[in-house]
Amino acid sequence: MNIFVNDYNDLCHERVFEKLGKIERNGHLGYGSDFYTEQAKNYIRRDLKDETVEIEFVGGGTIANIIAISANLMPYEGIIAASTGHITAHETGSIEATGHKLETIEVANGKLSAELIEEKILSLGEEYHIEPKLVYISQTTELGTVYSLEEIKEIYRVCVLHGLYLYIDGARMATGLAASGIDVSELPKICDIFTLGGTKNGAMYGEAIVIVDDDLKVNVRKFMKQRGAVMAKGFALGAQFAALFEDGLYYELGRKSFEASKKLESKLRSVGAKFYQEPVSNQIFIEYPLEKIEQLAVDNMFEVMPLDEDNRVLRFVTTYLTTDEEIENLASAL
Amino acid sequence: MNIFVNDYNDLCHERVFEKLGKIERNGHLGYGSDFYTEQAKNYIRRDLKDETVEIEFVGGGTIANIIAISANLMPYEGIIAASTGHITAHETGSIEATGHKLETIEVANGKLSAELIEEKILSLGEEYHIEPKLVYISQTTELGTVYSLEEIKEIYRVCVLHGLYLYIDGARMATGLAASGIDVSELPKICDIFTLGGTKNGAMYGEAIVIVDDDLKVNVRKFMKQRGAVMAKGFALGAQFAALFEDGLYYELGRKSFEASKKLESKLRSVGAKFYQEPVSNQIFIEYPLEKIEQLAVDNMFEVMPLDEDNRVLRFVTTYLTTDEEIENLASAL
Amino acid sequence: MNIFVNDYNDLCHERVFEKLGKIERNGHLGYGSDFYTEQAKNYIRRDLKDETVEIEFVGGGTIANIIAISANLMPYEGIIAASTGHITAHETGSIEATGHKLETIEVANGKLSAELIEEKILSLGEEYHIEPKLVYISQTTELGTVYSLEEIKEIYRVCVLHGLYLYIDGARMATGLAASGIDVSELPKICDIFTLGGTKNGAMYGEAIVIVDDDLKVNVRKFMKQRGAVMAKGFALGAQFAALFEDGLYYELGRKSFEASKKLESKLRSVGAKFYQEPVSNQIFIEYPLEKIEQLAVDNMFEVMPLDEDNRVLRFVTTYLTTDEEIENLASAL
Amino acid sequence: MNIFVNDYNDLCHERVFEKLGKIERNGHLGYGSDFYTEQAKNYIRRDLKDETVEIEFVGGGTIANIIAISANLMPYEGIIAASTGHITAHETGSIEATGHKLETIEVANGKLSAELIEEKILSLGEEYHIEPKLVYISQTTELGTVYSLEEIKEIYRVCVLHGLYLYIDGARMATGLAASGIDVSELPKICDIFTLGGTKNGAMYGEAIVIVDDDLKVNVRKFMKQRGAVMAKGFALGAQFAALFEDGLYYELGRKSFEASKKLESKLRSVGAKFYQEPVSNQIFIEYPLEKIEQLAVDNMFEVMPLDEDNRVLRFVTTYLTTDEEIENLASAL
Repeated sequence: MNIFVNDYNDLCHERVFEKLGKIERNGHLGYGSDFYTEQAKNYIRRDLKDETVEIEFVGGGTIANIIAISANLMPYEGIIAASTGHITAHETGSIEATGHKLETIEVANGKLSAELIEEKILSLGEEYHIEPKLVYISQTTELGTVYSLEEIKEIYRVCVLHGLYLYIDGARMATGLAASGIDVSELPKICDIFTLGGTKNGAMYGEAIVIVDDDLKVNVRKFMKQRGAVMAKGFALGAQFAALFEDGLYYELGRKSFEASKKLESKLRSVGAKFYQEPVSNQIFIEYPLEKIEQLAVDNMFEVMPLDEDNRVLRFVTTYLTTDEEIENLASAL
Repeated sequence: MNIFVNDYNDLCHERVFEKLGKIERNGHLGYGSDFYTEQAKNYIRRDLKDETVEIEFVGGGTIANIIAISANLMPYEGIIAASTGHITAHETGSIEATGHKLETIEVANGKLSAELIEEKILSLGEEYHIEPKLVYISQTTELGTVYSLEEIKEIYRVCVLHGLYLYIDGARMATGLAASGIDVSELPKICDIFTLGGTKNGAMYGEAIVIVDDDLKVNVRKFMKQRGAVMAKGFALGAQFAALFEDGLYYELGRKSFEASKKLESKLRSVGAKFYQEPVSNQIFIEYPLEKIEQLAVDNMFEVMPLDEDNRVLRFVTTYLTTDEEIENLASAL
Repeated sequence: MNIFVNDYNDLCHERVFEKLGKIERNGHLGYGSDFYTEQAKNYIRRDLKDETVEIEFVGGGTIANIIAISANLMPYEGIIAASTGHITAHETGSIEATGHKLETIEVANGKLSAELIEEKILSLGEEYHIEPKLVYISQTTELGTVYSLEEIKEIYRVCVLHGLYLYIDGARMATGLAASGIDVSELPKICDIFTLGGTKNGAMYGEAIVIVDDDLKVNVRKFMKQRGAVMAKGFALGAQFAALFEDGLYYELGRKSFEASKKLESKLRSVGAKFYQEPVSNQIFIEYPLEKIEQLAVDNMFEVMPLDEDNRVLRFVTTYLTTDEEIENLASAL
Repeated sequence: MNIFVNDYNDLCHERVFEKLGKIERNGHLGYGSDFYTEQAKNYIRRDLKDETVEIEFVGGGTIANIIAISANLMPYEGIIAASTGHITAHETGSIEATGHKLETIEVANGKLSAELIEEKILSLGEEYHIEPKLVYISQTTELGTVYSLEEIKEIYRVCVLHGLYLYIDGARMATGLAASGIDVSELPKICDIFTLGGTKNGAMYGEAIVIVDDDLKVNVRKFMKQRGAVMAKGFALGAQFAALFEDGLYYELGRKSFEASKKLESKLRSVGAKFYQEPVSNQIFIEYPLEKIEQLAVDNMFEVMPLDEDNRVLRFVTTYLTTDEEIENLASAL
């Protein structure tokens, strides 16, 4: 079976599992007060070249978004996001469930721009509108597109100008860094808070929330506890992130995933696949006849989305585990 | 070091870790649609002798309580709980954060009774009171006490009579079953929803929410997704619970923990320790002079709680890993 | 001064004020348990030809929407509304603040249709979407447009088919009935819950929430109390609605407002005004040069909305108090 | 009938009604941007001898509490209140519905003290507790007791010391000022936010929220709009408060109510009534045989609360309308 179904179908990278197997059997301090959590934070701070950021580890992407977005918002404050954003379209109203309105912007390619954000902020001046306070973007986006360093800087400039926070959802940050060429140490300079996703890049579970802005650090652990985001055995989270960040494994897996996607893109072009969206990162979307999907699915795992009566959109996701052979097989089958 | 600090200081039981090491490296379906989650559910349903319960796995105890309690409550409905209950005193207002009021009852030993519950329900008849809808108890309680089968049955009778749900927080259910002598298959008959805690009994992370009442099953997965409780790699949760429930490991660990606590109780009595609370299960509380704590802590890990100027309450928790040697050493040191 | 600024710039109709002046000076029962509230409910039930509806009075339109929409929704349930809807665009995230997501539909004229609603419902089938549970429409809409009886019936058919409630926000229901020709007694047959707005039609303050569906009646008063919507002196609300509904004053004021709008429309046509939106009810929108607004505002009150660099949209609202002279004056000034 | 049932059974004071009758029939600006609202704010600021406070008018006591308490709290912040407080026991979980936990203190006479508050704050130091941020007291309390100036100053000192806001619920502030001898101009110096209740002291509806602390002023109008607390016809609220505060009517009514209560207390003593609680302000509680209540209720209106099998607690409330004759009649009947 050639596996292109998503980037969370593996248990975890072997070095992550080995690390878990090596830590002390018992006697760990709870709730993230342990040695391995501290170690992981130190590795990440080193890579970010920023000793001042607060780092917290949580179990998954949706709870990471909830914490990062709503821990320090007032009830009348709202969030600006793309209509295709993960928090808008794929998290069952998780942000609204915290009481905050999303003000969404329709975009074709999943990416917000500084201009669109500023226009939206300026349209929200009246008392009967929420106070816009945080802009949500993700790297990579839901549609596999990627922000350049300049684009994010320009977005951040608008955020700072109008007193909004910028949050970058990094569920796929490892691939996002590889695809955009942004160095991880740039991140604390171009936003107020971001995540480094582990679940989709080698961890068994877990995301790191990195908080740059001091106001967003206040009592974030109390909020995490309130929302059920503090894991009792925080040391198991810490050990995984220590393995990922000790010597660059995290970035290496992101690069592998991105390189596999470039190979797949090239192969798909060579067999004349019709791209639904110009491929950028490790999510590749093609249009495909409905009638031929069943046959394709015999040996290949992928996601299917609606398009028109006779055709569907297929999504192929590459990961650090994707092999050349899988890519060859898929291309042949198409 | 003799470890009595809590029951979540170990990574996980070795058979749980082995199971994780043996499952397929990749290709798993996401969000709990996988083989191992199904397997774990089947083992648990078999033990419960009830094929009709819905079972969902989440990452930790607080999020399990949030889901179990508030997934299907209307906004004007409230919860009855002990003033010492975990949701009342140790979860940073997690239930209130879902919008629901806790109506608390002062109790000396951590246990509610049918009489106290009925009295509280009857006091809440007016329009300016919440509508009581769910009773929260835990087995074992925060104070280490345990409900008998008859006590829970009587509480459930009052709940049914007044149209309230009964929820049993089973973060320490394995020890609770051992200490109370209740067979696990009784649980679906004596409440509407309960949890089987994994974190404190052999899992790396994870709690099973078992839903008996049909109304409480409705769209619970949507609510889980909304609250960030659905883990992408559900198969890793499933595999752990499959290991715990395949052939009774879960109950065995609970018994070990309970038996260790009985040994510890006996030893403590023999050295003349002054119990702060009559010992019942795997949390044992004694009174101890403040000035002697530092010396005791050199070789022993435990929690310290306030008592009076000169004395403190020490909590010793036993687990499946507690050895006779550790018990001997602690007793000697006291 | 010719007043077209909105339909809530008057204290109240004189018969409403007289009624308040005539009721007993003191000795009223509180919280709506009084004689006048009962009287008002009876008049409304008589007009609706439905003795089974529950009627509750609250102080204003936004709190009426909050109560009507969220009193009996589960946390994972959401609302379908037009992108121009009052709850979407003019109430500072009031519905999201109750924890519920709005799924909005872009519409040009402020009106949803059965087809659009069904399409939206069908697009929300996955676990990572809210469960759609209530459709929000208003009569008249924010853009002054009006639903016909057939259109609402068709929308309701789709709602019933898919298990959703239909709520009609009647902040401007009196004018809406006049403009659509719908008899008030049709309302309980074509939706599950609706409001009869008083604030914009002769009352000093107050809206009647009429609940048709039995499930929506459950504990709605507890929810009202919880949200601060129960007024201590409910008898003052009751007396106003008794005056409005005793002998049809409510409908008469709606007709007057509508007739004035027809006269205004005709006059505006005769002076060649450029309508921004085809006029239907008592909100009329025209395009007007920015440079001429200042002069127009000397003797006329109206609202100004953005259009383009050189032009603005002006909104003229008629009410039961609008005189022919005011209409003549405005037309001349244009 | 002698009316002692509550202090919201009258329509309003005649001067308030006259003022409403005299304002312009139409043409008022909406949402509190009008002349009368400004006038009322100026009168109140003059009396408070503080030009810097922000004043907002809302329709009733529960919504006033919701706005005053939760407009500028972070989600992990909580409130300290007496177990008998109005928000704790009589508002259907209205504060919890905003997501905030109440940390309650058991008190016999309805009054918190600086010592009790400080003790509670110090007990909430851990991560699994909410962050205490606001202390709620009311003047007068639910039990009719009253804080002295010194008591409030001492409470405020503790609040400032620990970084908490102090909010005084003034639903019965007019009587509270009379009973305590506190001058209204002291209020901005001894707390961060308070209300001046109109509903129970001469208004038809409405409470003034007075915000002293600058952080609590931020965007409070957006929050009011979000919670449905902004009344479209704000001028009707403004006109009432202008009438109450133009020349001291508000304080005069409070004194009348308090003086009537002193007369009633004296009469009740003379007929040997057994006080359930030592009388302090305009709520007087006595113990009375169950079997004699029916007879008493023939000519007297009052509230009945549980006590024991054979006896009940009766509550008699005096207002500015209470006559000597009513007091005589009630005393005779007892």
